[in-house]
Amino acid sequence: MDERLEKQLAFALKIDEEKNIFRQTHLSNHGRNENDAEHAWHMAIMAYLLREYSNEPIDIGKVMLMCLIHDVVEIEAGDTYAYDEEAKKSQGAREAEAKKHLFGMLPEDQAKELMELFEEFEAFETPEAKFARAMDNLQPIMLNNSNGGSDWKEHGVSAKQVHGRQDKTALGSKKLFEVINDIIEDNVKKGNLKNE
Amino acid sequence: MDERLEKQLAFALKIDEEKNIFRQTHLSNHGRNENDAEHAWHMAIMAYLLREYSNEPIDIGKVMLMCLIHDVVEIEAGDTYAYDEEAKKSQGAREAEAKKHLFGMLPEDQAKELMELFEEFEAFETPEAKFARAMDNLQPIMLNNSNGGSDWKEHGVSAKQVHGRQDKTALGSKKLFEVINDIIEDNVKKGNLKNE
Repeated sequence: MDERLEKQLAFALKIDEEKNIFRQTHLSNHGRNENDAEHAWHMAIMAYLLREYSNEPIDIGKVMLMCLIHDVVEIEAGDTYAYDEEAKKSQGAREAEAKKHLFGMLPEDQAKELMELFEEFEAFETPEAKFARAMDNLQPIMLNNSNGGSDWKEHGVSAKQVHGRQDKTALGSKKLFEVINDIIEDNVKKGNLKNE
Repeated sequence: MDERLEKQLAFALKIDEEKNIFRQTHLSNHGRNENDAEHAWHMAIMAYLLREYSNEPIDIGKVMLMCLIHDVVEIEAGDTYAYDEEAKKSQGAREAEAKKHLFGMLPEDQAKELMELFEEFEAFETPEAKFARAMDNLQPIMLNNSNGGSDWKEHGVSAKQVHGRQDKTALGSKKLFEVINDIIEDNVKKGNLKNE
């Protein structure tokens, strides 16, 4: 087998490990914790189905690929819970190391391409990055809402904390932010989210 | 919320259940059984990374979406193991029912679009369907090979059975079929696959 294909297959096998990175979010019907690969799969399909609600025109193929790979670095850097302020301090350094090492397994052109795509998602500036981020926010809130906000209750999360993260969804999709805002208000009313 | 968006979100929540459909394949490093959502995520990324090996030019965005949704019907029809001849007899009827019901949750235009994409994958005629199928074959054989062929050993699978499925990979990618053929030969040699 030639070296290029060997590298591509080594990377393909390596990312299998993303299925072992578990998140705080639980699956619907009060299921087990979700893993990163499942979350990415779900986001990519939702991006396609909901693309008409992007504030700006987007290259949907690019958004889907961004969704699929946006958490790959967590194979080595671990998942950082959105409301864990302590872990978030070291998140940048941990993920930068992992990014170099993991994408570096690929042939140079693909390593560069995927690293740039990953960085574009992180930089949160292009219409594609903003819409992919909206999916990254909407997907877990949808699951958590379907479970009566149990993930928030477990961690004692407040509406203010959720807004801190979810308000950015409006930059990708005003329409989908309305959905999220309704979910937050509803969960405050039900006592699932602390109102502070 | 308007009816269109409500339907889209109901479908998005429903497909979460694909994460509970477990396959015979085990994750690398002798991990647990893989589920359909993880398998689809893996296939879609592999399709993107390996697209240069398609026999024919392909619309890679379409292939990725095909990979992502190709197992959705198993939420209601269950997973059918590739070498379970009895279960395969009823597979068509079970999946046809599920297809109508699940995609039917979407707004009409999207229901039609996704159903057609699903059927295109099943019909195995277009270059996109052939390459997506090559990923559907390569992904589990890659994992199983990394585990010393343990899935085959558990089910007493023969090289002939694996060829029956995997030879179709050559219609999507001759180059990737060579990889698969090497894997099969190697596993016969090691006694992981019955040579009959």
